[in-house]
Amino acid sequence: MNSSVSIQTLRRLPLYLHYLKSDATESDTVSATVIAEALGLNDVQVRKDLGSVSGSGKPKKGYVRKELIGELEKFIGYNNHIGAVLIGAGNLGRALLSYSGFSDYGLEIVAAFDRSNVVVGSYAGGRRVLPMSELGRVCREENVKLGIITVPASGAQEACDKLVAEGVTAIWNFAPITLKVPERVHVENENLASSLAVLSKHLNV
Amino acid sequence: MNSSVSIQTLRRLPLYLHYLKSDATESDTVSATVIAEALGLNDVQVRKDLGSVSGSGKPKKGYVRKELIGELEKFIGYNNHIGAVLIGAGNLGRALLSYSGFSDYGLEIVAAFDRSNVVVGSYAGGRRVLPMSELGRVCREENVKLGIITVPASGAQEACDKLVAEGVTAIWNFAPITLKVPERVHVENENLASSLAVLSKHLNV
Repeated sequence: MNSSVSIQTLRRLPLYLHYLKSDATESDTVSATVIAEALGLNDVQVRKDLGSVSGSGKPKKGYVRKELIGELEKFIGYNNHIGAVLIGAGNLGRALLSYSGFSDYGLEIVAAFDRSNVVVGSYAGGRRVLPMSELGRVCREENVKLGIITVPASGAQEACDKLVAEGVTAIWNFAPITLKVPERVHVENENLASSLAVLSKHLNV
Repeated sequence: MNSSVSIQTLRRLPLYLHYLKSDATESDTVSATVIAEALGLNDVQVRKDLGSVSGSGKPKKGYVRKELIGELEKFIGYNNHIGAVLIGAGNLGRALLSYSGFSDYGLEIVAAFDRSNVVVGSYAGGRRVLPMSELGRVCREENVKLGIITVPASGAQEACDKLVAEGVTAIWNFAPITLKVPERVHVENENLASSLAVLSKHLNV
C-alpha cells in the first residue's frame, strides 16, 4: 500500500470503483483479471494499480468486493467533503451548477461568482450568483481550497489569479488556455475544445 | 504541411487558435515564441506544432495572424458542420444540450435520446427528447457520424453498441467506463470523475 501513486493510476481508480459498485458483478470477490476484462484494460496494469491502493488482495481469490470499494473510496478521498467555488456563471458554469452527480464524489459547489452585473443576482442550480467582490469572504468562511473556472479564455487567468490569492490550492479549469499558477497549486484542465478537435479530425479525414 | 499530426499536437491546436482570436494580441504577425510564452508552453513544441499545420511561417517574422487562424480552423475542421446525436438526457446530457458554445466548433447536437419513458417527450436545450427507437431514423436522415454518450456507466456500452450499429464512427464518451468499439471507431473519453480524483487527492494529501 502506497500513499503516492502516479496520476495515470489515479485517473483509472474511479473506473474500478464504478465497475465494483455497478450491478455488473454479483460475486462477493473479484479479481484484477475480471476487472481488466470488463473495462478493456491490461490486467498487469490493473493488478499493479490495485496493489498500490489495497493490501487486501489474495492470490487466486482476488479482492473482497466491499473491502476494495471502501479502500478505493478512502484512497481517492470521495469520503472527504470538498467545497468548491465556481467562477463564470455562463452556459457551462450553469450546466455544472445544475449537475447533481458531483455529490457522489464528495464535491459541493458552495457558491458561484461572475463579474458581469447582468448575471449577478440570478439563480443557477438553486444558488444565487454572487459578485466577485464576495469571493474572498466566501473562501475564508467556507475554507474553500478548490476553484472551478468556467469563464471564457480571455478572463480565465484573472479568475485564476483571484482564486490563488484567496488561498485556493487546486483549480479545475474548463477555459481553453494554459493557466499560470505557483508551484503549490494543481491545475486540472478539462478542455472540451481539445476533445472536439480530435473528434472533428477523425470525422473529416 | 502535413495532414496527419499526433493527437497531442491536435489537442494543443485549439489553444493556439483561441489565443490568436483573443484580444491578447493586436499585432498582425505573431511568432511561435510569443504564442509559447503566452500559453506557458515550450516554444520548440509550439514551432513544431504550427509547422505541421501551416506552411506560411517566415523566419524572424513569424506568421500572419489572420492566415494562421484560417489554416488552424481548416486543419482542425471547425469550418465543417458536424451533426451529433446525444444519448442520455439526464443532468449532464441536459447541460450539454443547453450549452451554446459548441457552435463555435461547428458542432450541432441534432437530437437527444433517452431510454426512459419519463424523460422522452420532455424538452432540453430547445429539443424534444426522442425514444431510442428513433435513433436509427435520425442517424440515417441527418447522416450523423458522431455520438455523445451521457448515460450512467451501467448503460453506456449498450448506448455505444447502438450508435456503432447505426454507423457512427466517433464517440464522445462522458460515462466513466472504457467502451469496447470496433477499430474504425474513435472514442474520446471525457472523464470528470478521473479529474475529480486527481483534484481530490491533491487537496487531501
